[in-house]
Amino acid sequence: MRLKMIISVLLFLIAVGSAQAEIPWTFQPLPAQPPIPTDNPQTDAKIELGKQLFFDPRLSITGTHSCNSCHNLAAGGEDGLAQPVGVYGNKGRRSTLTLWNAAYHTIYNWDGSSKTLEKQALQHILDKNVMGMPDSKALLKRINSIDGYRLQFAAVFAGEGLSATTIAKAIASFERTLVTGNSPFDRFLKGDEQAISDREQRGFQKFIDVRCASCHFWVNLAGPNPGLALQQGEGFYELFPNYPGTDYEKRYGLADDIGRYDFSRVKTDTRMWRVPSLRNIAITAPYFHNGAVKTLDEAVRVMAKTQLNRELTDHQVGDIVAFLKTLTGEFPQITLPHLPATPNRTVITGHAE
Amino acid sequence: MRLKMIISVLLFLIAVGSAQAEIPWTFQPLPAQPPIPTDNPQTDAKIELGKQLFFDPRLSITGTHSCNSCHNLAAGGEDGLAQPVGVYGNKGRRSTLTLWNAAYHTIYNWDGSSKTLEKQALQHILDKNVMGMPDSKALLKRINSIDGYRLQFAAVFAGEGLSATTIAKAIASFERTLVTGNSPFDRFLKGDEQAISDREQRGFQKFIDVRCASCHFWVNLAGPNPGLALQQGEGFYELFPNYPGTDYEKRYGLADDIGRYDFSRVKTDTRMWRVPSLRNIAITAPYFHNGAVKTLDEAVRVMAKTQLNRELTDHQVGDIVAFLKTLTGEFPQITLPHLPATPNRTVITGHAE
Repeated sequence: MRLKMIISVLLFLIAVGSAQAEIPWTFQPLPAQPPIPTDNPQTDAKIELGKQLFFDPRLSITGTHSCNSCHNLAAGGEDGLAQPVGVYGNKGRRSTLTLWNAAYHTIYNWDGSSKTLEKQALQHILDKNVMGMPDSKALLKRINSIDGYRLQFAAVFAGEGLSATTIAKAIASFERTLVTGNSPFDRFLKGDEQAISDREQRGFQKFIDVRCASCHFWVNLAGPNPGLALQQGEGFYELFPNYPGTDYEKRYGLADDIGRYDFSRVKTDTRMWRVPSLRNIAITAPYFHNGAVKTLDEAVRVMAKTQLNRELTDHQVGDIVAFLKTLTGEFPQITLPHLPATPNRTVITGHAE
Repeated sequence: MRLKMIISVLLFLIAVGSAQAEIPWTFQPLPAQPPIPTDNPQTDAKIELGKQLFFDPRLSITGTHSCNSCHNLAAGGEDGLAQPVGVYGNKGRRSTLTLWNAAYHTIYNWDGSSKTLEKQALQHILDKNVMGMPDSKALLKRINSIDGYRLQFAAVFAGEGLSATTIAKAIASFERTLVTGNSPFDRFLKGDEQAISDREQRGFQKFIDVRCASCHFWVNLAGPNPGLALQQGEGFYELFPNYPGTDYEKRYGLADDIGRYDFSRVKTDTRMWRVPSLRNIAITAPYFHNGAVKTLDEAVRVMAKTQLNRELTDHQVGDIVAFLKTLTGEFPQITLPHLPATPNRTVITGHAE
């Protein structure tokens, strides 16, 4: 914690110290390619297989929910709901995080309970409130019953075969292609000063001055910068609410969830949360882990008060929101896959709702 | 009813009378373009708008179900389930019918309760067990709250504006592009005798000899042929089970649903059903209005017994199924739309589950 605090302060000082024309080094345009793990190199065939799995509702116990059901790639990579709705109408406890640009993160879920995209994918397939597969065995049995998948796994994972691990690897490979670069802010960072308006630039400066940038920095405006000495995968958590007892906290139930503690059972993790990305934040309402805040204006007000003990004027909020809108990137075209069929027979039998 | 019976017998005689090499005129290759209603001409902008609406879960009251949730275009245009699962986990009573090639039909739903694609779309948006919008007003309010839709409707439906009718028109326009032509059977009908194997050709002949073709004929193998004197839109219904009291009827609960009578309240419509298309039938298990039959082999056996009072040998069933597999067409690539966003705010508020 102490190390993180020192780094935050350091970053803040560097950011505040930068002239407006000189972009603080703490922000980076989105690289075209995210980091690729050495044990799961990208191939076209693997990405295609992962795309099929991503869009296939047969990965859920009931045959009704695909990854895309909540992480909607026709939209902001999430579901636009306060709480996700999984199989049997079960509700997830925390608001869905976007999968766009998720490949640039080092921790996943609001509580950092997965450290890789691979683990995150499998975690939600096996979550009774999400896709509801009871265990890896049931998942394998399902996928194994679909010839088109068996053949693809044999070809794509020649040495490894079909397993929960390779299913997760294929999905994660596809997810590493979900990149929305070339936002106005990216173009601005690359030197095009016309890419964002005077008001948006003022908002950016305000974003730094108010200290939003203390946590929301680097490529995903989500910290951490792996170039720093943070242990890879340790992640970057912040206490929320940082200034307790505000009206906002009560109104939106912000302290009702114990955060990372619920996963780690480490006392100091109580109400600690991963810092979420701000990329595409304008199109991924509602906000916060409980989805309780319906507008970005209000989310900015709440964060300033609960995290930084600042009350912003409407004018300041407007400028910051104008800046945040420049973080909406360009969405790549995705061709809907054609899922492997099971001629003559149904796959979902005993477990349908 | 008498007219239909006469036509059926006539068709059967013509079909049976045809030599194997001479394709009965009752079968037609899928035309590249389906009929387009004069009051809803196709335009690229309208099709694109319709595609967005089709894939948009915000058309459901809960923000969780799009048209594609049940009519999965990554697969056979349906959900692979015995019963569809709609909002709040509500189950639909009857198995989802495919939307692929639906534009060639003249009646929709198992009971023919909609006579156009436009009506069918709206019917399911407003069905409490499907997408659950309470009424057209709620639907309009939802769509109206999304700027990107308001702008598109103003441009695409310049004279008509945004209404439940134009929403349905846009969706239906997109659905009229959902055509899977060039199946092996289509190529065979066009003269390529190598397109289907000897066994498949034997199955085709058996399909005619056993009289499956009495109902399953014309472009969608679903009757009716609009070229006949059938009143456009009257449709083509058959009694099912036709031979009552079979073991199959009991085992699969085939007579538990009163069919079209439930919609029309005309006594003679009791257990009358629309004849479903056989295109892509191999990949749209499970079968029948209640989805009770899990394999195509069994579906063929059941139909022969309950409709034609015939017991088929495994060999005969195998041949007919081999033929039915030749009805799987080529699926066009669909680019996932990018749904109009609502920057800074959420759309689904009070009604979420």
